[in-house]
Amino acid sequence: MNQPIQLLGISNAIVDILAHIEDSFLEQIGAARGSMTLIDEQRAREIYSMMGPATEMSGGSVANTVAGFANLGGSAAYIGRVKADQLGAIFNHDMRSLGIDVRLPPGKDGAPTARSHILISADGQRTMQTYLGACMELSVSDITPESVGTPKAVLIEGYVWDLPEGPALTQKAMAIAAQNGTAVVLSLSDSFCVERHRDSFMQAIRNHVDIVVADEDEVAALLQTEKFEDMLTSLDDYDNLFAITRSENGSVIVHGDQKIVQAATAVDTVIDTTGAGDAYTAGFLYGWVNDYPLAECARIGTFCGTTVIQQVGGRIEPGLLDSYRSE
Amino acid sequence: MNQPIQLLGISNAIVDILAHIEDSFLEQIGAARGSMTLIDEQRAREIYSMMGPATEMSGGSVANTVAGFANLGGSAAYIGRVKADQLGAIFNHDMRSLGIDVRLPPGKDGAPTARSHILISADGQRTMQTYLGACMELSVSDITPESVGTPKAVLIEGYVWDLPEGPALTQKAMAIAAQNGTAVVLSLSDSFCVERHRDSFMQAIRNHVDIVVADEDEVAALLQTEKFEDMLTSLDDYDNLFAITRSENGSVIVHGDQKIVQAATAVDTVIDTTGAGDAYTAGFLYGWVNDYPLAECARIGTFCGTTVIQQVGGRIEPGLLDSYRSE
Repeated sequence: MNQPIQLLGISNAIVDILAHIEDSFLEQIGAARGSMTLIDEQRAREIYSMMGPATEMSGGSVANTVAGFANLGGSAAYIGRVKADQLGAIFNHDMRSLGIDVRLPPGKDGAPTARSHILISADGQRTMQTYLGACMELSVSDITPESVGTPKAVLIEGYVWDLPEGPALTQKAMAIAAQNGTAVVLSLSDSFCVERHRDSFMQAIRNHVDIVVADEDEVAALLQTEKFEDMLTSLDDYDNLFAITRSENGSVIVHGDQKIVQAATAVDTVIDTTGAGDAYTAGFLYGWVNDYPLAECARIGTFCGTTVIQQVGGRIEPGLLDSYRSE
Repeated sequence: MNQPIQLLGISNAIVDILAHIEDSFLEQIGAARGSMTLIDEQRAREIYSMMGPATEMSGGSVANTVAGFANLGGSAAYIGRVKADQLGAIFNHDMRSLGIDVRLPPGKDGAPTARSHILISADGQRTMQTYLGACMELSVSDITPESVGTPKAVLIEGYVWDLPEGPALTQKAMAIAAQNGTAVVLSLSDSFCVERHRDSFMQAIRNHVDIVVADEDEVAALLQTEKFEDMLTSLDDYDNLFAITRSENGSVIVHGDQKIVQAATAVDTVIDTTGAGDAYTAGFLYGWVNDYPLAECARIGTFCGTTVIQQVGGRIEPGLLDSYRSE
């Protein structure tokens, strides 16, 4: 390790299979526009065989954030499970090539590396059909004081709670973080994920989590509120820091009495919304680990999210912060 | 088979690994800007480990042309060797999803599916480091009256002559084509490839080839001429149809006494020149198999090539001909 790690990500390690589709394709496979559905290997084969030509690139929500964070110049480490197959090699290569310290070796046996079929509609909306494969084998024994280390923050993905040992391994990671003074950041992943694990998330937020990153639908699902104003009122009961993205309505940072409203940046053409939230989180956390004021963290997050929706694929390119600074 | 096949491609089946680079990276690996170098598996691992995050997509020169041809609405078939690994599955999926009749099953043993590391400079120039892997196992026994069928044209890639059984298998394919009245189209691939196989190419052109598709550097290497005017004069000795691309100078079609000059289309920003020639060939051959006048074939080719240099990656998207027709 050349420098102390600022951010450790723990998440599903996934290769994205991106293709543009007509919305009729979603009807054909029975998928709701904008949803993320977990599918098994058989169904993954069926969907793939029905899809047009695709582009493959490393993905996964928190993995995208960690990659973006490294591209911004942050020092990062990563815990996620791939198999020792070609897609696993691609995933680990792409992380390592950004200087990210990949903590787990690829698995020799078991299910293949995970893949997410990302179906991009003409308006940039994404619908995901995800086969978790090797991710399902992430285990409690993978989380140790050595693999976690002593980063400034550990970012855990809500989707990890979907894994068989997910609740136990996140518990262990949060306990190690507490011992080391590492901040715990929870990404709520998506609102269906929140519905699946509301009680666990709530308990984690009450007891272990310092920062919650989410979009407003996810926070609404968590707090079971309908109106945005009611959501803000409910947040009065929490002393965690919430960074909440709101698409074209920008974002809002809530921390105790502090409330920071950040406007969105107007964009001519949205190419692909994949990873906009992940990129926002990368920028926000880059500012946070560097002790920037929260308003500045929100501005960097917005810049990263705005950049990503104007390209295909969810990852931000190196040198992005130079463009931000020259604006 | 639902409709008679118009175009059969025989070529190296390759997955592209695309990444943007600084030109200093080329110095570091000792590669000449714009070159295509064949590398072994060990060197492929080294180069990949030095590269930044990449995007993977099906590629290969003539495979790109066949995919583009199918996307334009042509009926196509394909002969090329992949292994039964994840990259091979991606390659075959991408071809089949365009309705292309993939004639060979993936190999069970042997080298992995081929990959080409495509290093894209800031100005869009591409430099390729290609590991041929499973392609090397394409054999004479793969070429049969059944696998070739009776297409209107068979398009063979110059690079196939680099394979151990390449000269013999192309000979067999051209003999089968001759028996069935199938036109033989030869893509010269690149000027170093022409240097490697000039005598074989010359013999094929004199005896079997109907159409030669190439850029002007490749034709210059073939005829050993320096000036463009001398090249045109030399072509007087050939009765083959030559479709010659000239980058920003457009293209020229030469067939006996007939000479058609097609201007290039001005482009604001070149993103990536990968596959511009392959896309031109797709458009040109689409016109040719449909008996369009040669000038129209050249215009469609130019439209396809112009589109491809304004995007990352070498393949043309479905529906492109609609944009052409509405211009």
